Amino acid sequence: MEIRVQMVFEGLFALEELREIYRHALPTGLDADEEAQYDAKIVEIEAIVADLKAGTGQPKVAKIAGAIDLRTREEQAINIQPIQAAGRLTLEARKAVISYGDGYSTCDACRKPFRLDKICKPPIASFHQELAAFLNLDQARVVPGARRGFQAVTASLVQKGDPVIVSALAHYTEFLAVEQAGGVVREVPLSPGNVVTADATAMKIEDVVRETGRTPALVMIDHYDYQFANEHDVKGIAKVAHQYDIPFLYNGAYTVGVMPVDGKAIGADFVVGSGHKSMAAPAPSGVLATTDEYAPQVFRTTGMVGDVTSRKFGIKEVEMLGCTLMGANLIAMMASFPAVRERTRHWSEEVERSNFFIGRLLAIEGSRVLSEYPRKHTLTKVDTTGSFDTVAKTHKRRGFYFSDELSSRGIVGEFAGATRTWKLNTYGLSWKQVRYLADTFIEVAEKYRIPITFQ
Amino acid sequence: MEIRVQMVFEGLFALEELREIYRHALPTGLDADEEAQYDAKIVEIEAIVADLKAGTGQPKVAKIAGAIDLRTREEQAINIQPIQAAGRLTLEARKAVISYGDGYSTCDACRKPFRLDKICKPPIASFHQELAAFLNLDQARVVPGARRGFQAVTASLVQKGDPVIVSALAHYTEFLAVEQAGGVVREVPLSPGNVVTADATAMKIEDVVRETGRTPALVMIDHYDYQFANEHDVKGIAKVAHQYDIPFLYNGAYTVGVMPVDGKAIGADFVVGSGHKSMAAPAPSGVLATTDEYAPQVFRTTGMVGDVTSRKFGIKEVEMLGCTLMGANLIAMMASFPAVRERTRHWSEEVERSNFFIGRLLAIEGSRVLSEYPRKHTLTKVDTTGSFDTVAKTHKRRGFYFSDELSSRGIVGEFAGATRTWKLNTYGLSWKQVRYLADTFIEVAEKYRIPITFQ
Repeated sequence: MEIRVQMVFEGLFALEELREIYRHALPTGLDADEEAQYDAKIVEIEAIVADLKAGTGQPKVAKIAGAIDLRTREEQAINIQPIQAAGRLTLEARKAVISYGDGYSTCDACRKPFRLDKICKPPIASFHQELAAFLNLDQARVVPGARRGFQAVTASLVQKGDPVIVSALAHYTEFLAVEQAGGVVREVPLSPGNVVTADATAMKIEDVVRETGRTPALVMIDHYDYQFANEHDVKGIAKVAHQYDIPFLYNGAYTVGVMPVDGKAIGADFVVGSGHKSMAAPAPSGVLATTDEYAPQVFRTTGMVGDVTSRKFGIKEVEMLGCTLMGANLIAMMASFPAVRERTRHWSEEVERSNFFIGRLLAIEGSRVLSEYPRKHTLTKVDTTGSFDTVAKTHKRRGFYFSDELSSRGIVGEFAGATRTWKLNTYGLSWKQVRYLADTFIEVAEKYRIPITFQ
Repeated sequence: MEIRVQMVFEGLFALEELREIYRHALPTGLDADEEAQYDAKIVEIEAIVADLKAGTGQPKVAKIAGAIDLRTREEQAINIQPIQAAGRLTLEARKAVISYGDGYSTCDACRKPFRLDKICKPPIASFHQELAAFLNLDQARVVPGARRGFQAVTASLVQKGDPVIVSALAHYTEFLAVEQAGGVVREVPLSPGNVVTADATAMKIEDVVRETGRTPALVMIDHYDYQFANEHDVKGIAKVAHQYDIPFLYNGAYTVGVMPVDGKAIGADFVVGSGHKSMAAPAPSGVLATTDEYAPQVFRTTGMVGDVTSRKFGIKEVEMLGCTLMGANLIAMMASFPAVRERTRHWSEEVERSNFFIGRLLAIEGSRVLSEYPRKHTLTKVDTTGSFDTVAKTHKRRGFYFSDELSSRGIVGEFAGATRTWKLNTYGLSWKQVRYLADTFIEVAEKYRIPITFQ
C-alpha cells in the first residue's frame, strides 16, 4: 500500500483516539490523567503528520478491532465493480458518518409528533421535501434499501396469489418483495436487443388476465436493469399499466442519484431508489416516493389499538415500521445530496466516458459488448471470451491472470477469474482515470499479443 | 464548544480531504497538481495539530454540506438520553465507519453463493456464528433494526386476523410488525409493580382463545420494556407460551449488547436485538436469532421462479429480502462486538451506578422513581413533579429552567422542558461521570432550595 494512504488512516484513527478521551471526560474538561493521555496522543499525531509530509512511516494499524482489514480500494485503485461505483461516499458524506455515527444520532431534537421525517434539526424534514421534489413526486420516505421500498409497495397492494408484472431482467429483490407479499411474479419477455417494451408489457398483462382471471396488482420495471443496464421504455410501460388501471413502480436503483428522474413525466406511481447503489450513501439506505393518490395506502398510519391500554401510535406508518433510517446513513445521504443532485445534471458526460472506454475495449479483437451499444449507462456487460479469455486457456493462472494483470496496475472490481462475460461500471471516473483504465486494458492485450484494431 | 473538540473534528475532516485527493488520483500516484493540493492540505493539518496542541484555534468548519451541524454531544457533555446511551459507537466502530462508509463496502469479496452472511473477508460469516453463540441460539442474521426482526417473524408466523400476545408495555414497533402482518395485538395486563407475569400471560392466552377461538400465533415480550425498563418474567412467559404450543419472541432491544442473554436458558424461539439501541452500532442495525426448529420458516429461501426465464434465486431468504446490512453498519457492529461482548459481563456494575444515581435523585425531596426500585437496569423513569417541577411553576422559563441548568453544566439528553415524568439512562457512564451527574442534580436542587435528605 502507498504509505501515505496508510498514514491517512492512521491519522484519522489517532484523531478518533483523541476524540475518545473527550468521550470519557467530564463536561468540565480533562483531568490530569486525561491531559497526559491527550498530550501523548498529540505526539503520536505529530509523528503521523510528519510521516504524511515526508511520505514515510512504519504502518502500525493493520486491522480494525483486530479482525477487519482497512478498506483502501477507493484510495489505492480504480474500482470498476459493477454495483459499487455510485455508492461511494462523497467527502461530505464521510464527514457526516464521522460526526453522526452513533446509533440514534438523528434523534437529539426529536419532538412531537415523534417521527423521523418530521425532525427539523438536523434538517431531515426539509430533506424529505427536497427528495420528493428531486424525483418530481408528491411524497418521499427514506428506507433501509431499495428492496424495503419494493416491500412497502407490494405489501400494500398485492394480495395473496396476485400476479405482479416484472421484467425478464428483474432484480432478485423484486422477486423476493413479491413473494414476501404472497404474490406471484410474471415476467415480460425481452424484445430483440434485450429490452422491455410497452407492447410486450401489454401482451403480458393480457396473457396474465386471460390465464389467471386476475388483473396484475402492480407493474414493476427497472429503468436500467442490473444485467445489461439497457434502457427500458418505462414511460411507455407506465402508460400501458395505467390503461389497465394497474399502478406502476419505477425501479430507479440504477438511475436515482446518477441521472435525472422525473416521476410525473414517466407516469410513475412509485419511484424507488437505492442510497448505497446510486446516491453516495452508506448501506442500507434508499428512497421510496409516491403520489398523493397512493401515499394514503403505502404510507398509511397505524390503526392498531391496544385492547388493554387503548394505546394508539397514530402517526407511525405501518409499512415504514415507524422510523426508518435513524442515524448516520440518513445524515450521509443528506450530506451527499447537494453533490448527488448536481451530478445528475452531468450524466451525459458519464455516459460519454463509458462509451469511450467500451470503444477502446472493442478495439481489442474478439471483445464484445453484450449491453446495448452505444451505451446509455456506465454499467456494461462485456464478453471477452474472444479476447482476454483466449489467453486464460493456456495461462497457468487461468482466468485469474487477467485479474492479476489488472490489479497489479491498480484496477480492481472485476469479478476475479471471470474473463468471459462480466460487468463493469465506469461511474464517477474522471477523464484521466477512464483513459488510464482504457490504456491498461490495451496494455494487457498488447502484452499477450491480442490484436488491437482502433476504428 | 471546547476549542479542542472543534479542532478534533477539523483535523478529521482535513484528513478526509487529504484522502479525497487519493480518490481522484491514478493508481500510479499523485500528479503535480494533486501533489500541490496534498502539500497545501498538509500545511492546514499541521496548523490544526498545532492548535490541538496549544488548545487554540479559529473554528473554520460550521456545517457539514453547508446544512448539518457537527454533532458533539458525546464529546462535550454527559448524555442521559434514554435510547441513545448504549448505541454510542465504540472507538473501533468509529474506525470501521471511516474505513467502510462506502455503499457496498462489504461486498468486495462476495463469492458464490452470493449472500452477505456467507462472506468471509471481512469475516462476516464467522461473525454470524459468533452472534448466534453470543445469544445461545442456533442461527442469527443481522437486520436493519430490531423492528425488521419482529417483522420477519410476524410475517412468517402470523396469518390474517391471528392474535399475537404482547405486553401492555409493548413497544410501538411490535404493534406495527403485527399490524403489517395482518395480525391483531392482544396485551397482557400489568401486574402490581408494572411487570408482566407468566400467570397474567397464561390468563390472557386463555381469554384470547375463548374469545376468538384462535390460539395466538406468537407471544412477543420485552425482557425490559421501553417505558420503565422493568424486568418481565420472560423465562416464565416462554414456558407458558410453550404450554400452549405458541412460539416465544424475546425482545432484547434493551438487553442484547448490554447484559448477558441466553436464548436457550430463557426458552426463546426468537431473540431480537437492536444494534443502534444496545450494541454500539449505527442505525439501522439489529439481530434476529432463532432455533434450528424455526430457522427453516423464518429464514426460508425463495421458491419463486420466473415464468419466462425460469430464474430462481434459491439461496436468498425471503424475509431478509436477500442481503441485509451491506456496509458500514454491519462492519461497525462487528468492530464493536468484542467490546460489546465484554461489557455484558460488567452489567452489574452498570446497574450499580444506575442505583447510585437514582439514590441521589431520591434524596432530593419530592422526587420519585416510577420504575421498579432498586433498579435492575440503567434506563429509569422518574417523577420530579414534587421536586424540580415545583420550581418550574414560578420560573420565567417554566420547565425549561431545568434543561437550562443541566445543559449549562454539560448534562444533555433529558427531554427539554420535561420536569414531571421523564426517562434517563446512565448506561456507559464511568463512576466519575455518574458522580458528576448526581452532584449536578444536587447542585441544581440546592440552588433552588429544594430540600435534600441523604438517607
